[in-house]
Amino acid sequence: MKAFVTGGAGFIGSTLADRLLAGGHQVTAYDNFSSGQRGFVAHNLVHPAYRLIEGDLLDERRLADAVPGHDVVFHLAANADVRHGLEHPRRDLEQNTIATYNVLESMRLGSVRRIVFSSTGSIYGEPDVFPTPENCPFPVQTSLYGASKLAGEGLVSAYCTGYGFSGWVFRFVSILGERYTHGHVFDFVRQLRADPANLRILGDGKQRKSYLYVQDCVDAMMLALEKRPQGYQVLNLGTDEYVSVEESVSLITRVMGVKPRLSYTGGARGWVGDSPFIFLDCAKIRALGWMPRLRIAGAIERTTKYLLDNPSLLDRRS
Amino acid sequence: MKAFVTGGAGFIGSTLADRLLAGGHQVTAYDNFSSGQRGFVAHNLVHPAYRLIEGDLLDERRLADAVPGHDVVFHLAANADVRHGLEHPRRDLEQNTIATYNVLESMRLGSVRRIVFSSTGSIYGEPDVFPTPENCPFPVQTSLYGASKLAGEGLVSAYCTGYGFSGWVFRFVSILGERYTHGHVFDFVRQLRADPANLRILGDGKQRKSYLYVQDCVDAMMLALEKRPQGYQVLNLGTDEYVSVEESVSLITRVMGVKPRLSYTGGARGWVGDSPFIFLDCAKIRALGWMPRLRIAGAIERTTKYLLDNPSLLDRRS
Repeated sequence: MKAFVTGGAGFIGSTLADRLLAGGHQVTAYDNFSSGQRGFVAHNLVHPAYRLIEGDLLDERRLADAVPGHDVVFHLAANADVRHGLEHPRRDLEQNTIATYNVLESMRLGSVRRIVFSSTGSIYGEPDVFPTPENCPFPVQTSLYGASKLAGEGLVSAYCTGYGFSGWVFRFVSILGERYTHGHVFDFVRQLRADPANLRILGDGKQRKSYLYVQDCVDAMMLALEKRPQGYQVLNLGTDEYVSVEESVSLITRVMGVKPRLSYTGGARGWVGDSPFIFLDCAKIRALGWMPRLRIAGAIERTTKYLLDNPSLLDRRS
Repeated sequence: MKAFVTGGAGFIGSTLADRLLAGGHQVTAYDNFSSGQRGFVAHNLVHPAYRLIEGDLLDERRLADAVPGHDVVFHLAANADVRHGLEHPRRDLEQNTIATYNVLESMRLGSVRRIVFSSTGSIYGEPDVFPTPENCPFPVQTSLYGASKLAGEGLVSAYCTGYGFSGWVFRFVSILGERYTHGHVFDFVRQLRADPANLRILGDGKQRKSYLYVQDCVDAMMLALEKRPQGYQVLNLGTDEYVSVEESVSLITRVMGVKPRLSYTGGARGWVGDSPFIFLDCAKIRALGWMPRLRIAGAIERTTKYLLDNPSLLDRRS
């Protein structure tokens, strides 16, 4: 199968590309390297079934030239900086909402009608139901990031109804694992590497979050290939557990062998729009035969070790 | 109070402007006259508390100059052409999603933090629950129009959480009454005026729809002024009843004194993305003291008479 992967040089996109190639598929990775890393794709550049296009999703012409001829588009490119969204409100609109529209239009015009889209559990805002199922009460958005992913989901579903696309939308929890480049494990490891004696925690540390290991995430996306879905489908994607921020801290500090003094910025949320509790009901994807192989604790430990082994990643964001 | 009304020369916007002026408020109407009508605002041009700005919501600079100094923004401008959305997918993105972002940004930068936004019952797609409450199960979008309004709602709520805006979002059923310029009553009256002997009905005529009289709609928006809301609130806005398309036809033909032969394009939907049944639970707005004064039948009759008295409106869209 010929797969087009937006954000193909990013954390999840490059991992997916590797798996697609290993499965005998052809891959075109499209990335503007705003957060993608050349180191994540270098090993594939000589692979005969791999092609890398350096391009931006706001460049409609480039995209329209690149997309035709593929069987499926994995649209993973996004501004995933949830925390600082309020400092640059246009970024989520452009890189998530408009970019998703551009991807869908390039597909429509290029007669590619199958899309897998990475959405987010943040779309549930602050839900009342836990674990939160896909059909929970109509949520209220609490972040520009969530709002932009909601807009993306709406576009994907409208293209499915209106133009006969088939679409799988995955609502991810936070993804961890090799090539992870942002998020709170990243922040904690970076802080502790600079100063092992002190750790500043956003919020009161009681926030409960779910995580998923990147290879388990990619398993689910590969399932979307095998099942050859018709129509529109939304699937939560996470583990059947959660950990508090303080529990993540003890996992990370144990791996690093440090005992920092913890300080807290306070409040139930780490930042405006931070959801104090993310825990998704993943019964729907499990009923399709998927299950995660790694638990949260294992994913956090593995991610910490990966970052310690690749300090250049930590440095570039300091 | 100083009110800024986008789409201020349109059907609902110009009616709201009249009511605001009658209530002693100042009004700035902002409209690009893509569907707004000069005839709807001409009587206000000499009013000392009224100002008309001819401008487009995609013109960020013009908007940023115009918005500061107001107390509240009624954001009513939209591409409301649900039926033909698939012919020009970019229109909903630009005129609804991006335009709403531009309005919110002009407010943020201009320190105006109170917005009333016209959303739509179409946002529920094809719901399972009737009457449909605001917190019904997370819906799937079936039209680009619905998707673009969903995107708009998400932006409004994210601005409320992130920047301390207060926002009232109204999910309208179809609005009828004086100055009505598009929709199925319009199409039927226009058809019957051209040929009283034949009427072509999109779908099987069994679609059930709710309608609301424009003055009742404006009552609800005036309530949003009086209640001085904090935070974010979503309110359905409709009547506690519905009629089938065939029932609307008999109301319209009775007013017109015609007995056409009816033909049907067939199918449960009038077009791709048409919702076969729209019936909203309006208990929440009723609990605030609002109730509609006109029933659906009265609204359809009144609208039919209005169109017959203003045939130039029918001609311009032929």
